Amino acid sequence: MDYVYGPGRNHLFVPGPVNIPDQVIRAMNRNNEDYRSPAIPALTKILLEDVKKIFKTTTGTPFLIPTTGTGAWESALTNTLSPGDRTISFMIGQFSLLWIDQQQRLGFNVDVVESEWGQGANLDILASKLAADTAHTIKAVCIVHNETATGVTNNLARVRKILDDYRHPALILVDGVSSICALDFRMDEWGVDVALTGSQKALSLPTGMGIVCASPKALEASKTSKSYKVFFDWKDYLKFYQMGTYWPYTPSIQLLYGLRAALDLIFEEGLDNVIARHNRLATGTRLAVEAWGLKNCTQKEEWFSDTVTAVVVPPYIESSEIVRRAWKRYNLSLGLGLNKVAGKVFRIGHLGNLNELQLLGCLAGVEMVLKDVGYPIKLGSGVGAASAYFQNTTPLIASRI
Amino acid sequence: MDYVYGPGRNHLFVPGPVNIPDQVIRAMNRNNEDYRSPAIPALTKILLEDVKKIFKTTTGTPFLIPTTGTGAWESALTNTLSPGDRTISFMIGQFSLLWIDQQQRLGFNVDVVESEWGQGANLDILASKLAADTAHTIKAVCIVHNETATGVTNNLARVRKILDDYRHPALILVDGVSSICALDFRMDEWGVDVALTGSQKALSLPTGMGIVCASPKALEASKTSKSYKVFFDWKDYLKFYQMGTYWPYTPSIQLLYGLRAALDLIFEEGLDNVIARHNRLATGTRLAVEAWGLKNCTQKEEWFSDTVTAVVVPPYIESSEIVRRAWKRYNLSLGLGLNKVAGKVFRIGHLGNLNELQLLGCLAGVEMVLKDVGYPIKLGSGVGAASAYFQNTTPLIASRI
Amino acid sequence: MDYVYGPGRNHLFVPGPVNIPDQVIRAMNRNNEDYRSPAIPALTKILLEDVKKIFKTTTGTPFLIPTTGTGAWESALTNTLSPGDRTISFMIGQFSLLWIDQQQRLGFNVDVVESEWGQGANLDILASKLAADTAHTIKAVCIVHNETATGVTNNLARVRKILDDYRHPALILVDGVSSICALDFRMDEWGVDVALTGSQKALSLPTGMGIVCASPKALEASKTSKSYKVFFDWKDYLKFYQMGTYWPYTPSIQLLYGLRAALDLIFEEGLDNVIARHNRLATGTRLAVEAWGLKNCTQKEEWFSDTVTAVVVPPYIESSEIVRRAWKRYNLSLGLGLNKVAGKVFRIGHLGNLNELQLLGCLAGVEMVLKDVGYPIKLGSGVGAASAYFQNTTPLIASRI
Amino acid sequence: MDYVYGPGRNHLFVPGPVNIPDQVIRAMNRNNEDYRSPAIPALTKILLEDVKKIFKTTTGTPFLIPTTGTGAWESALTNTLSPGDRTISFMIGQFSLLWIDQQQRLGFNVDVVESEWGQGANLDILASKLAADTAHTIKAVCIVHNETATGVTNNLARVRKILDDYRHPALILVDGVSSICALDFRMDEWGVDVALTGSQKALSLPTGMGIVCASPKALEASKTSKSYKVFFDWKDYLKFYQMGTYWPYTPSIQLLYGLRAALDLIFEEGLDNVIARHNRLATGTRLAVEAWGLKNCTQKEEWFSDTVTAVVVPPYIESSEIVRRAWKRYNLSLGLGLNKVAGKVFRIGHLGNLNELQLLGCLAGVEMVLKDVGYPIKLGSGVGAASAYFQNTTPLIASRI
Repeated sequence: MDYVYGPGRNHLFVPGPVNIPDQVIRAMNRNNEDYRSPAIPALTKILLEDVKKIFKTTTGTPFLIPTTGTGAWESALTNTLSPGDRTISFMIGQFSLLWIDQQQRLGFNVDVVESEWGQGANLDILASKLAADTAHTIKAVCIVHNETATGVTNNLARVRKILDDYRHPALILVDGVSSICALDFRMDEWGVDVALTGSQKALSLPTGMGIVCASPKALEASKTSKSYKVFFDWKDYLKFYQMGTYWPYTPSIQLLYGLRAALDLIFEEGLDNVIARHNRLATGTRLAVEAWGLKNCTQKEEWFSDTVTAVVVPPYIESSEIVRRAWKRYNLSLGLGLNKVAGKVFRIGHLGNLNELQLLGCLAGVEMVLKDVGYPIKLGSGVGAASAYFQNTTPLIASRI
Repeated sequence: MDYVYGPGRNHLFVPGPVNIPDQVIRAMNRNNEDYRSPAIPALTKILLEDVKKIFKTTTGTPFLIPTTGTGAWESALTNTLSPGDRTISFMIGQFSLLWIDQQQRLGFNVDVVESEWGQGANLDILASKLAADTAHTIKAVCIVHNETATGVTNNLARVRKILDDYRHPALILVDGVSSICALDFRMDEWGVDVALTGSQKALSLPTGMGIVCASPKALEASKTSKSYKVFFDWKDYLKFYQMGTYWPYTPSIQLLYGLRAALDLIFEEGLDNVIARHNRLATGTRLAVEAWGLKNCTQKEEWFSDTVTAVVVPPYIESSEIVRRAWKRYNLSLGLGLNKVAGKVFRIGHLGNLNELQLLGCLAGVEMVLKDVGYPIKLGSGVGAASAYFQNTTPLIASRI
Repeated sequence: MDYVYGPGRNHLFVPGPVNIPDQVIRAMNRNNEDYRSPAIPALTKILLEDVKKIFKTTTGTPFLIPTTGTGAWESALTNTLSPGDRTISFMIGQFSLLWIDQQQRLGFNVDVVESEWGQGANLDILASKLAADTAHTIKAVCIVHNETATGVTNNLARVRKILDDYRHPALILVDGVSSICALDFRMDEWGVDVALTGSQKALSLPTGMGIVCASPKALEASKTSKSYKVFFDWKDYLKFYQMGTYWPYTPSIQLLYGLRAALDLIFEEGLDNVIARHNRLATGTRLAVEAWGLKNCTQKEEWFSDTVTAVVVPPYIESSEIVRRAWKRYNLSLGLGLNKVAGKVFRIGHLGNLNELQLLGCLAGVEMVLKDVGYPIKLGSGVGAASAYFQNTTPLIASRI
Repeated sequence: MDYVYGPGRNHLFVPGPVNIPDQVIRAMNRNNEDYRSPAIPALTKILLEDVKKIFKTTTGTPFLIPTTGTGAWESALTNTLSPGDRTISFMIGQFSLLWIDQQQRLGFNVDVVESEWGQGANLDILASKLAADTAHTIKAVCIVHNETATGVTNNLARVRKILDDYRHPALILVDGVSSICALDFRMDEWGVDVALTGSQKALSLPTGMGIVCASPKALEASKTSKSYKVFFDWKDYLKFYQMGTYWPYTPSIQLLYGLRAALDLIFEEGLDNVIARHNRLATGTRLAVEAWGLKNCTQKEEWFSDTVTAVVVPPYIESSEIVRRAWKRYNLSLGLGLNKVAGKVFRIGHLGNLNELQLLGCLAGVEMVLKDVGYPIKLGSGVGAASAYFQNTTPLIASRI
């Protein structure tokens, strides 16, 4: 089983799946249970209430679906749209690309707004398209909050504003896979209609739970959607919500208890503190990249992602070699460059249940690998730059004051 | 978290999710890993080979999908059929009913063959329908191998024979959720085109992995299927199989290691010994039911299920009261009667990683609950009947001889 | 590692180590921690308060020693006595024999009061010895509360009374290894001076923590004890208690968190309910033995143990054969007969975190094994007898009402 | 339970208890078992063979005692010596001090050879004492291989040579608590008579197993030792070794399986590679200390410890403040200065299952804390110095080449 053994811990810095806290691993270390006993509905009921908090919604309806982010996407689309419906979607990296591919294959009429990889969604084009769409043929604006492939965060508040400016009724569907619970996300305030994430990202759980949250307007839209779906159909969930048994099919008992533990940790730290911690770790990472003399794939500061940093390597280096060596020599797992940026960037995921010293260990590892592959780096430079920031900004651990 | 605490172990005898062996719980007790490192594809490659053995296929192509049985159904249907396609489907209990409902909602033209609940699929009608279908409008025969709601096992070998008799090219799609890895199932020999199960059943894992296996003929059919799907699309898997990276989206690291451990246990015991053990435990259960003077919901011996027994209670007893009391007083989880047989039957699941004494503890519990609700039972009678059978048939544990 | 694999759970019915509840296994599933950080002393402080409750003492001082029951014995003796000191000790089974052996080897002058195995301590002889000892040469009365080898419980209240009757100042040292937290034990009320148990018994933890509780009188005695000891020396603990750091050497972090979880479960159930449950399970076991037509090794009801039952087998059966077969065929672990009763009895441990159906599964297993070895048993008879008792006496699980 | 929660992992760099590898945590995540079944003796038999390898002995007899290092000390002493026996013992730090205290309290006549803390054992004085002891009144030389309080490693080969030079028959008793399985240790080659370690040190297990290994000469000495002992008496173990049941009292099932897993990891990496890794990590640490402009408490390179580094802080800093802040702000656990060096040093433990990036994370944390307390450090300097060394010396992970 453990044929991949290396001494000491694996340093997991891919942008998902991320490190699971010990408390959550413990909570999931358990046998199955009958999900039809009174215990599981009671647990579920509270989870559904609590999970709304990470979306910052009071009016949304959450669904805990035994699937991945890809399934969560499909759930968002097939419940709110009908084949042929026009959507606007922004192609800015590999994950927005995959979502657009899904939208097309599910039969929607996707109006793709493309940007260079490393840039955010082009919201000016969104504005002009909405302005032109007086007939309201656009049914939904689909946008990735944080593009994991390039480390680009889009401005959702502005998306809302543009729709409001044009009084356009299109739904806003948000892929929050690598943002929710890590970046500032406000479902109600920003009028997001469907938001979704996956358990293995900022929630720091294993893969296997797609969490989708629907606004009242999205629920209304779902009543007339003509997309074929059963597994992802919200109606089945809603029927069981009404009955108080909650589950149209068998949930993972372990993930339910794991989610309970994960939320407990997040609430203990405080969601806003969690978000601040992500900003702190990301800032440190960016300072390290700067100290190394390398470039962030993200072209402007307004798009900087606090959950993942894509680092551009010099042309004479193949970035996958960095990832390969990090794993083989230092037990460090970094993210590959994908598709258009394959070979050109490597990625440092800094999301989930993580702290300063873990990240500094990662940065030290990146430095050694950069030197291994021939980049003229001063060892300790990035760690020092990040440390200087952390030393001034890291708060005392609340429970230990 | 453990607000449902009761002293001692929970006795889990619902027909899924079932007891997870300690070895598997241990194997899953782990942090996430980068699924793009060399380790996970290496693990996956062997799993895909090994999982074929539980289907008894050498020509099939397995898919390990992060979903439940319901999703596995959807995968089987949407990859092989197009909206409007005619299927034959047998309504014999709650799970065949739900599958039929799914087939209809996904846009197929379902020809439903209904039987009384407690009876097997009416294969004579299948024969006559195939005989009449010289134009081969029937694209697939959809059949539940083991109907979990009533404890009825269908004769798949005969389904094959009937199709062969009429040289009918329809695909055979089999729901093996509560059969595969517990009942005698032979994908290649019986010419099954798609077979599927869920991790939380006989494999004795947590919920979260739908395992679907496709014959070459099913793969061929998938090339022309016009059903909309992305998450469940086999093509995405096949593309990644070719690349040797295996995963179109993030798998559950824990379930992969868990599956490895589960298969190791099954192979150590021997699949045929596992099947024989299920028959032994089921026979003991049926002897107990007989000793109690109660009736098996399954009307004929040829349909007796070796994974679940639905027990008919006298009319003056509400069967859900039995389930409720078992859980509240004896920490025993039994299966409810569902839909048409709600209130009329309770179910004893005897599948997965289970042994004689666990089952005898369950049977003793059922006896006490039956007495609690006023059924005139002789305490110890069922246990004694089952014990007499076990005492003559239980082999020595192989590793301890 | 798991070369001893058998399908399903092991049924662990030796009188220790006993089944660990899942909640405790989870709590112990963790990495090491620095025991000198503020966290571990804070945890320890509360544990020391809470552990007194299972001794029913408010004046006692507990020590959580990284050792076994044998070490706990040594701690009790070497801290309160000096070489050459006279003790009275009762030889009634293998564990009292071993304790006496220890007392002799540690240099004490042991006055052994022997009873037939299966009988309790002869307290009449105690009375006469105390009566004769007007010079108070007897420094301690050493008594096993529950002799695990024979299933005999001694009457500690009467020991106290006899000492009081003769106004004898001897200390009472009690081996409560298989009693405390399962049988009625009252340290303060009965004036016990040192009481001890091991983590792997009724507390349902792994082996590794000897829990010793000393009365003020015992602490006073420890100041003048001349026995050589360092590891077991209470003075080192007391010094660290004063400093608030608690640990003279490294504790097991896992066992501390495990003890916390174990106590939480005991307090949730209620200690008196735990004791009542032990009595219920023991009564059921004894009714089964009676139904089988076999004899309890314990000769009188007043000595019946609620934590272990030693069952006498007919002369033509070798009891170790029963234990051997139970393990090899039914994955059932029973206790061997030890020393004088080797081959003549087998033992059913019914202590710790256990419930009715677990025990009934065990009893069903014993029945089959008895038949296997040629004893003319009616299968189901013992289970039926125990069930009849349980069905009338088992309360609803408190958290599920 | 988790009231000490802080985000991300705890960085455990005390010199014991150390980080437990996930593989070992998994192996220990289990229920109790009957230790008298055939399985546990079979497991024990192999463990006893395998554990000899970490002592580099073929002639030694190991004992796996449910105790701590302090208990292992007591076992070594009380089995080989009698009260009044003369020992030579070296006082060079807190742990040698505690061992000397134990020797005195157990009644031995200890001839203490004192060195300044930060120096190794004064072997010249040993030589002169042995030279003078023509009557062979010295029964044992007791020496700590690695003094954990100061990070000083003694030269055991020279101890052997001195004894040989004077043909002195004294036993060599070695405290290998923070050395065995991490430093070069050769029981047979160096003629060590008793060597001992604790599970929570380089073996990377929880606390609770004292591992003591006795040479044939030590076993011979144990036959005539007059020290009182029962729990620690080797004779009881030897009796059970002969019977093939191995355990005079109940072992921790979890620690046995844990030891199996720990040894598997050590053998997979290769013991000499483990030792080389400890040297590499220690060298990196020392280079960092140098880069910070701080002094190693160890006064000469010949004594440098590869398992722990005690760092001397400037007089204007209280070292415990460093430890306190590291834990409160960065979730970093460092070792306090003890006794004579309290307030003057803090310690970095770099032993057990650990790798380069974990250590670099720790070093980065130390840098920030040093700055926090006002030491004029250049952030990144130590990390850079250690990285430069690691980048040149870290081998590829064997299983990943």
